[in-house]
Amino acid sequence: MALEYKLLYESKECNARLGEIHTPHGVIETPIFMPVGTKATVKTMTPDELKDLEAQIILSNTYHLYLRPGHSLVKEAGGLHKFMNWDRPILTDSGGFQVFSLGKMRKITEEGVVFKSHIDGSEHFISPEKAVEIQNCLGSDIMMAFDECTPYPATYEYAKQSMERTTRWAKRCKEAHKNTDKQALFGIVQGSMYKDLRLESLRQLVELDLPGYALGGLSVGEPAEIMKEVLDYMVHEMPRNKPRYLMGVGSPDYIFEAVERGIDMADCVMPTRMARNGAFMTSKGRITIKNAVHRNDFSPIDDECECYCCKNYSRAYLRHLFKENEILGARLATIHNLFFLINLMKNIRISIREERFLEFKNDFYQKYGYKK
Amino acid sequence: MALEYKLLYESKECNARLGEIHTPHGVIETPIFMPVGTKATVKTMTPDELKDLEAQIILSNTYHLYLRPGHSLVKEAGGLHKFMNWDRPILTDSGGFQVFSLGKMRKITEEGVVFKSHIDGSEHFISPEKAVEIQNCLGSDIMMAFDECTPYPATYEYAKQSMERTTRWAKRCKEAHKNTDKQALFGIVQGSMYKDLRLESLRQLVELDLPGYALGGLSVGEPAEIMKEVLDYMVHEMPRNKPRYLMGVGSPDYIFEAVERGIDMADCVMPTRMARNGAFMTSKGRITIKNAVHRNDFSPIDDECECYCCKNYSRAYLRHLFKENEILGARLATIHNLFFLINLMKNIRISIREERFLEFKNDFYQKYGYKK
Ligand SMILES: [Zn+2]
Ligand SMILES: [Zn+2]
Repeated sequence: MALEYKLLYESKECNARLGEIHTPHGVIETPIFMPVGTKATVKTMTPDELKDLEAQIILSNTYHLYLRPGHSLVKEAGGLHKFMNWDRPILTDSGGFQVFSLGKMRKITEEGVVFKSHIDGSEHFISPEKAVEIQNCLGSDIMMAFDECTPYPATYEYAKQSMERTTRWAKRCKEAHKNTDKQALFGIVQGSMYKDLRLESLRQLVELDLPGYALGGLSVGEPAEIMKEVLDYMVHEMPRNKPRYLMGVGSPDYIFEAVERGIDMADCVMPTRMARNGAFMTSKGRITIKNAVHRNDFSPIDDECECYCCKNYSRAYLRHLFKENEILGARLATIHNLFFLINLMKNIRISIREERFLEFKNDFYQKYGYKK
Repeated sequence: MALEYKLLYESKECNARLGEIHTPHGVIETPIFMPVGTKATVKTMTPDELKDLEAQIILSNTYHLYLRPGHSLVKEAGGLHKFMNWDRPILTDSGGFQVFSLGKMRKITEEGVVFKSHIDGSEHFISPEKAVEIQNCLGSDIMMAFDECTPYPATYEYAKQSMERTTRWAKRCKEAHKNTDKQALFGIVQGSMYKDLRLESLRQLVELDLPGYALGGLSVGEPAEIMKEVLDYMVHEMPRNKPRYLMGVGSPDYIFEAVERGIDMADCVMPTRMARNGAFMTSKGRITIKNAVHRNDFSPIDDECECYCCKNYSRAYLRHLFKENEILGARLATIHNLFFLINLMKNIRISIREERFLEFKNDFYQKYGYKK
């Protein structure tokens, strides 16, 4: 078995829980935030810097790596870990989300999806078997089944057909996946916002006895209330002894809400993308560094933050870097935002253990300016 | 006195020499290559990374910092060292070169230069006094006198007038410069390619008894032979007890030729600019990483190189990063190119001490593919 989940502690005040995921490239403490390295690099960062930030696992992207540089090349390089010089765990998504959001003129059949590359318009076909083959070449610790990410909103009928196909595709992924001692295949629960479909999707996937389950089709533009509602009824149905992964979630409030509802893993491009636009996440809310108010502010972004950026650079200097489009600005902002989220998750884990998660969440929301 | 030059050793086989420049922010071993941090950042690099590369001094740019963020802001921040988090020596150019090359609609009078900003077209006036005031605000260890960089080619008459004005401006710079215990003011020898003008320029500047002298108006497009010729006759006239700085030189061959002719300091944007375009300097010549030949080459850029890039990444991965415009590519290339030049200069210093500089130069040229 490539992956083992150990449940360490369950909160008494909510559904939050502590665990460990053991992989061939090391142990991940959960709940965990996973930085996204779409194209075999977490944008602007070296692997050593990610380790300094205590990143335990990163996510990379099957669709993008399939197109460029190509999964065969990555395999020839000795796999994704060696190619990008990262020796800790990697999770690869299935490419499903990108095929549907980036691929042009896609045609979905039971067999798979024909689409045109967003880069050069060339035609490609990805099936569940192909998605597994690509991820086997990449050699990620955690692979995702090829799914159809149901857009929001969707009719009941569409959501039902799409969910059922996702299950059939998950079965085919499981059958195609041979490298089970080195790579764990997770299933993806779909069903849009329909409770019976979600529960049926989960039931069908659990029958496949996969090493982990993800919730897909959330954080795709639906109101936060709907996401919370789905999490509320899913948490009691998802296997207790398997990791639970909420895809595409990375804002502090969504992280708190997800962890409170028993989620173990989350990922999002937002902190790194925001960083490159000069938006810093802080304990007191978001800072847009290009604003004139920071021109001669020689204090750090966040005086409570222990990151390399906050310990060494002023807002005035960071603003200067962003005004001049200097790469160092994007680097420092990425370091800060990733540190912020990774550190937040670390403090969340501590608060769960000490049975004061809800208090920690309340305090954070108040300081950050969120409504509860 | 802000600066002290100690001559440590003179080569017996050529005019190369070893020395130390003592500044308020530490000692620089010469001959030295200075990375360029135009806008208060060596592009893509943190100061800590520069220290890992053993960069001993960096250069920054008066013209750019005057326009943005403004020298008053940098002063308010506590000076350039503090602003950019670099505690080793800094040399600032005078802005003269940029006023002439970037400023639009410039008008030169005896008083100074009126020009329009290349950013927003706003009108500005820089005089020798203003150039000193700006550099006093920046707090650099070595300041440069405000000069007129004579373009190549220039008529004798033009070069003569321009050189004489540069001397008058240097005098005014010296008079305006009050912070002499913390900042050293270097003069800039002009005179185009005319031997008598160059020698006269030097003679006039030496009368001012400045702590160092630079050769300006070279490496501005003239044939290498002309530059070598100028260096050949200047070396015996330049004060033996003062550092000699050749402005704008950074290709390996120019560095060898300059050091052989008694130059102590050199700077150039080339290694960092090349890096951002995916051009790597190696002991065997230049590598353009985007070329298809590197697609599945899993060897490092330079297997003799000890830099972070070469120790951890393959050409295939670097090519992938550059094809995808990933910032990490520019970072790794900058690390490699700066390491290459800094390390080259270190080995040059060792070869001078061991009286085998010319042999080292010969070997390098042969391997790199230069003609002697
Ligand atoms: Zn920070
Ligand atoms: Zn190297």
